[in-house]
Amino acid sequence: MMGARLPCLDWCRNYDRVTLARDLVAAAIVTVMLIPQSLAYALLAGVPAQMGLYATILPLVAYALLGSSRTLSVGPVAIISLMTATAVGEVVATTGADYVTATIALAMLSGLILLLMGALRLGFLVNFLSHAVVAGFITASAIIIALGQLPALLGVDAGGGNLLDLSSGLLATAPATHPLTLVLGLLALGLLLLSRRWVPRLVSLGLPKTPVQLLCKASPVLVVFVTAALARWLTVEQAGVALVGEIPGGLPTLALPTVLPELWRELFDSALLIAIIGYVESVSVGKTLAAKRRQRIDPNQELIGLGAANVTSALSGGIPVSGGFSRSVVNFDAGAATPAASLFAAAGMALAALYLAPYLYHLPRATLAAVILVAVFQLIDFSHLRRAWRYSRGDFMAIATTILLTLLLGVEVGVMCGVVASLLLHLYETSRPHVAVVGEVPGTEHFRNVERHQVITHPGIISLRVDESLYFANAAYIEDAIYSLVSRTPRLRHVVLMCPAVNAIDLSALEVLESVNDRLAEAGVKLHLSEVKGPVMDCLRKSDFLLRLSGEVFLSQHQAVARLSGAQPAQPQALLSAL
Amino acid sequence: MMGARLPCLDWCRNYDRVTLARDLVAAAIVTVMLIPQSLAYALLAGVPAQMGLYATILPLVAYALLGSSRTLSVGPVAIISLMTATAVGEVVATTGADYVTATIALAMLSGLILLLMGALRLGFLVNFLSHAVVAGFITASAIIIALGQLPALLGVDAGGGNLLDLSSGLLATAPATHPLTLVLGLLALGLLLLSRRWVPRLVSLGLPKTPVQLLCKASPVLVVFVTAALARWLTVEQAGVALVGEIPGGLPTLALPTVLPELWRELFDSALLIAIIGYVESVSVGKTLAAKRRQRIDPNQELIGLGAANVTSALSGGIPVSGGFSRSVVNFDAGAATPAASLFAAAGMALAALYLAPYLYHLPRATLAAVILVAVFQLIDFSHLRRAWRYSRGDFMAIATTILLTLLLGVEVGVMCGVVASLLLHLYETSRPHVAVVGEVPGTEHFRNVERHQVITHPGIISLRVDESLYFANAAYIEDAIYSLVSRTPRLRHVVLMCPAVNAIDLSALEVLESVNDRLAEAGVKLHLSEVKGPVMDCLRKSDFLLRLSGEVFLSQHQAVARLSGAQPAQPQALLSAL
Repeated sequence: MMGARLPCLDWCRNYDRVTLARDLVAAAIVTVMLIPQSLAYALLAGVPAQMGLYATILPLVAYALLGSSRTLSVGPVAIISLMTATAVGEVVATTGADYVTATIALAMLSGLILLLMGALRLGFLVNFLSHAVVAGFITASAIIIALGQLPALLGVDAGGGNLLDLSSGLLATAPATHPLTLVLGLLALGLLLLSRRWVPRLVSLGLPKTPVQLLCKASPVLVVFVTAALARWLTVEQAGVALVGEIPGGLPTLALPTVLPELWRELFDSALLIAIIGYVESVSVGKTLAAKRRQRIDPNQELIGLGAANVTSALSGGIPVSGGFSRSVVNFDAGAATPAASLFAAAGMALAALYLAPYLYHLPRATLAAVILVAVFQLIDFSHLRRAWRYSRGDFMAIATTILLTLLLGVEVGVMCGVVASLLLHLYETSRPHVAVVGEVPGTEHFRNVERHQVITHPGIISLRVDESLYFANAAYIEDAIYSLVSRTPRLRHVVLMCPAVNAIDLSALEVLESVNDRLAEAGVKLHLSEVKGPVMDCLRKSDFLLRLSGEVFLSQHQAVARLSGAQPAQPQALLSAL
Repeated sequence: MMGARLPCLDWCRNYDRVTLARDLVAAAIVTVMLIPQSLAYALLAGVPAQMGLYATILPLVAYALLGSSRTLSVGPVAIISLMTATAVGEVVATTGADYVTATIALAMLSGLILLLMGALRLGFLVNFLSHAVVAGFITASAIIIALGQLPALLGVDAGGGNLLDLSSGLLATAPATHPLTLVLGLLALGLLLLSRRWVPRLVSLGLPKTPVQLLCKASPVLVVFVTAALARWLTVEQAGVALVGEIPGGLPTLALPTVLPELWRELFDSALLIAIIGYVESVSVGKTLAAKRRQRIDPNQELIGLGAANVTSALSGGIPVSGGFSRSVVNFDAGAATPAASLFAAAGMALAALYLAPYLYHLPRATLAAVILVAVFQLIDFSHLRRAWRYSRGDFMAIATTILLTLLLGVEVGVMCGVVASLLLHLYETSRPHVAVVGEVPGTEHFRNVERHQVITHPGIISLRVDESLYFANAAYIEDAIYSLVSRTPRLRHVVLMCPAVNAIDLSALEVLESVNDRLAEAGVKLHLSEVKGPVMDCLRKSDFLLRLSGEVFLSQHQAVARLSGAQPAQPQALLSAL
């Protein structure tokens, strides 16, 4: 496929019975998690529940064959479903398109974008999405998702893509709370929280680990069937409890989505965003798990695997998918050794699609809201924000901006502003670099900041270290720094620009250096460079700057100062006191 | 004014007769340049000619009182007029606003934006506009302006804001060329070019410099009156030659522009762009001239001065203004010593507005097109492009992108894409930093790249120098570089990350360093740091990274290697051959 290799050939060859057993156990656990989650995330995306089931069959097969992670579990995930609901909601409002058609088109487009990025080997682009921004985005999205479940739990009709719309909707509709729906929802929520807390303790009672783990992960699916049975027995439908209703049984039918140019154009930006966010989440989960087993994942192959998963989801009438964090960790912990585990899980989901549908008719929507609530609560994590506050204001600003704007303006605007803010903050910091006057640490050839270390300096010589590459955004700042230092230093004869931290000099900065050189020369001061790196020197040689330079280029600052100070005795701290 | 000082107080105090004489000569020369240029640039902006005159009276007074450059000549300039035409043309098409009203609103908005930026001391923001982008933008805009004069020269009706529209318009209308208009236009063009070439040579014939200079600069105004007189004598109006026509004589009347919220909102982005471009051009001219006389200009005061100039232009019914390059150089060369020269020039322009109007009725528009053509030809300069091609591909890409997109998509899209492209190129380069394995230069304590220098290395120790700050966009790249190096080096015990070029480590990069530290530790390899800068060390101390670090932090790479290599004999190039 577009020159990509088939990673599945690597693990197929040595497949044995031990591996088979491990993969089957993992598949069973992932399948019981996938059933309620796929239904719930389909409703979160705003489409009929079966579209979630359909997104867990072929996409798992596609990723198992083409993805490079051995344990990633692909399928519907909360944040991508929220982004889908936001994007499709907008497009339906503006173009009047059909909701289901638009959702399938979105999955198709995201998949095609990922495949194209993979073919062009553009995986590196996601490096510009900082961890800080992603962490903030996930926390804010999880809060929006959690709030968005409250109407279903209360049995009222409210919605919205941001904090303000959601809370005003909730406040307005809360008085209309449907008590029976709330009771069923709270029952589901209680059962889920209790089983999450108490089932793992069965291990300490001497029960074997695997069945306990299976039971623990199966609690949502059990809650689904318990509440569905209860709802049927109590005939709550007549009492007005919102149910999942008719789910067509059977496997998905394959169909090429019809290309509606206007719809696809309107969806393009959202599809790109969903592709990138899904990819970033997926790769970071994949990387973490791979590192634990000394495996590696190939970022460009991941684009192919995830792209194929989304395209097959669209072909089988499903919603956009990604690598889910919690399911992948469960898959890994349950011992999944190869992507065959995902193939078996896909088979399990196919069986579910074939035979479970009739039992889901009476499932209260409030149960699925409870399943989502419990799942996304784990994603709300403010520890990044706390850590960034201690570590650096720039990172804190980036996270806080992303969280705030995502909460206030919704997922799309939030994450885009976060990315832009993090890049601008980085640029802003590099535009005002640290500039230090340095001197020699006694007994060494090493130069450090005169304000931090006891060092030797020489009158008439300024050793100046610029702690940044010189480029257009900081050239004027550095020019000013040099002039203000020079104007404060009497009897100056040499300025040595120490360049160990200068990794590049662009044309704008070169022009500034030329004018600094000329103006210092007019004032009888020579400009020297030291410790210029190879790549920078290569670049400077292409211009005539080195010919025009009034001073010299020294290999090290030690040599520069030794030569320029000549026979003068060293005077510790002389320069510092002169400033 | 908003806490800013009045720079005019500095030069008013010591004003004497010598200075007065110099300023008067300069004012006379600038005035004769301003008359044809102000008329021409008003037509370029698409508004009646008198709006150009009005923009040369109060704005000059305002800048003389509030600006920090002593010789900058403010007024209508070619590129700002082109941007005005583009912005107003669009807004008029979408909102149906009046052309003149919209132009005045644009000047007002730009002025207010500049004043606000000055009050907030945001002058540093323009550093993000690289010289490369500005140079490319000016060249491309000048080409568009030059092409845009051809219809007026040919006497046809065509227009457009980019290369394609202009050329297709010209091709379609060229057959309708009006011969008499063309003859008059070529006459004006010929006279301008001849006088530009021959008048300066009068100096070599022994004539004094000042009158020759005045005559040279007056040639456009002479051409204006000669062609106007000719057009009147030949009664070309009946023959269908487009004339400037009725210009209301008298001084501008002051009026507060009415605030039309929709119009102002639509104009805001363009006003911001015009404010920034005008400011950047103006400051770069001001800086260059100030440096020649050892004066300085204050970037934030310039915002105030230029903002006040635009606000007063709007109040007196003028067009947006900026500091013009050619007029400022002429003002400087003519000996202008203080901004009083601009006050005198403003007085000259007031006289022109009062008494010249009747003589301009018969001025052919083709003459003004010729004036513009000759003026903007000097702005077309591809030497930057050539220089960047030799010096660095990144700068070349930034200039080429700006030129191409400005030509193809017009000034607004062009300059914005140029800025974004230059920032993205910079980020792209820092996302793939140079990483070098280094060794000690024999006989020194200095470490250089093993591939470029004959250096000493030690088995079991990798000294790795990363030539970039560590931040989210390059953290994954550096992680991969370290792992691939480690995996290729047998019997490795120590990795020393040499950090003289690491000017910052952000939270994402810190997380990567932590995981590198942990994974190397699992493999029995210790991670050390050396030459960590003060500010970076301050930052690292706020996290627990230094506690978790498996190795040590050394002051210098020399100390690190001396300590870690212990008693082992040095083996030159050992590591290099091991790779």
